[in-house]
Amino acid sequence: MNIHKLDKYAKSLIKEAARRIKSSFATELIIESKSEANDLVTNIDKETEQFFIRHIKQDFPDHRIFGEEGFGDSLQDLKGFVWMLDPIDGTMNFIHQKKNFAISLGIYKDGVGILGYIYNVMDDDLISASLGEGAFFNDIRIPEVKQAIVEQSIIGINASWVVPNKYIEHEGMGKLLQTVRGTRSYGSAAIEISYVVTGKLDAYISMRLSPWDIAGGMVIAKEVGAIVTNLSNEPINLLQQNTFIISKPGLHKELITNYIRLK
Amino acid sequence: MNIHKLDKYAKSLIKEAARRIKSSFATELIIESKSEANDLVTNIDKETEQFFIRHIKQDFPDHRIFGEEGFGDSLQDLKGFVWMLDPIDGTMNFIHQKKNFAISLGIYKDGVGILGYIYNVMDDDLISASLGEGAFFNDIRIPEVKQAIVEQSIIGINASWVVPNKYIEHEGMGKLLQTVRGTRSYGSAAIEISYVVTGKLDAYISMRLSPWDIAGGMVIAKEVGAIVTNLSNEPINLLQQNTFIISKPGLHKELITNYIRLK
Repeated sequence: MNIHKLDKYAKSLIKEAARRIKSSFATELIIESKSEANDLVTNIDKETEQFFIRHIKQDFPDHRIFGEEGFGDSLQDLKGFVWMLDPIDGTMNFIHQKKNFAISLGIYKDGVGILGYIYNVMDDDLISASLGEGAFFNDIRIPEVKQAIVEQSIIGINASWVVPNKYIEHEGMGKLLQTVRGTRSYGSAAIEISYVVTGKLDAYISMRLSPWDIAGGMVIAKEVGAIVTNLSNEPINLLQQNTFIISKPGLHKELITNYIRLK
Repeated sequence: MNIHKLDKYAKSLIKEAARRIKSSFATELIIESKSEANDLVTNIDKETEQFFIRHIKQDFPDHRIFGEEGFGDSLQDLKGFVWMLDPIDGTMNFIHQKKNFAISLGIYKDGVGILGYIYNVMDDDLISASLGEGAFFNDIRIPEVKQAIVEQSIIGINASWVVPNKYIEHEGMGKLLQTVRGTRSYGSAAIEISYVVTGKLDAYISMRLSPWDIAGGMVIAKEVGAIVTNLSNEPINLLQQNTFIISKPGLHKELITNYIRLK
């Protein structure tokens, strides 16, 4: 498998999927709830995943697909080529804002991320990375992320995690709030990860993300020197949901050590 | 004073100021702290305000300017024409992200908002409104905001206001977090207001905003039927700092009545 060819193929699928998503704004959106009342999915999420699967299965029949909407394969391992896809990351933004959502895609070979993409559809900004070959914002090479200290940091974190909740001790999060320069919340893991790898945020923390939310971002993170772990400072397991932090290097240790206490 | 001419003039000043801000990215940014450690200001904030003042004072010598950086007039009343200007709303985003900041401008005559502007500089999106003549997103008329219910709402609110703080009872904010569909935080009052008037957020709440943060947005809000008050449900006083809510109509009453308790 030629990685450059696969990269070109993946980019063309992403751009075509984005064109279809944009054109869907003219038609009616059918909104359903998934497991929780506010875990929304639309016909466009589903159609976009099916679009990817149709093409990948035709052109790479031995590749497997692990996708948010569940039309792909059920995975017990990461052997061979696996595409991890969230067709619309930030579905709530897609529905309410018609912007601030992304196509998130990571392509893994035997568990190693080889290609990663986050495409902010409405801004037409594609972040891409190839293992060992760096990361790019559209066609501009993204520099290594810089060091940061917590007092001058802007952290992506949802307000839900600073009040009492079942995942994390909120006292530590409250202390973090009082220490950092600011917090932001954009409602899309892929977009928040894209902000960290391009230096617009210093870290992003979440309590529960699925493999397809983060697989593409993890390939990009590696190429720019951003650290990704779960909130217990362990490697991410791409076969299950994870707690999640992506951060500039020095800051990662400080956040894990001094502020984050899982329940 | 011909309002259409004034509108055209204001828009050309805004666009020229934005061009200067963008070109400043090539030069060194000088960052200072104001009253608080994280209340930042740059040479570009100051130069942009001075650019506006220089032109306004030359072309409209009897107009007064009330601006974030303090180079304008010191106001005891709102008689005559008053320009309320935040040259860069979202300075922290300007510094860290080089995007997600706005020029915010309201022009008031004897205390009545007649022209309002929020210009998202990097997205090149100008929201403008003229009293009684509607509001526009670039050149597209913005429809009236729709009704919303709290359970299906996305609210702009910073995480700082959901933990114990000196302004608002955090229990009510915690209850709100558990009830709404989602929260967002973008780090610029003008941008969050622009999201409410265009239906991307259902409400935005803040504990402390200055007149220049909101004066432009208030003119726009009126034209699309969004409700603006302080958090005690009183009219905004544009000569002082205020607590602030902008919301879709039905939601405004519900938020004020059931969730917001000032200390």
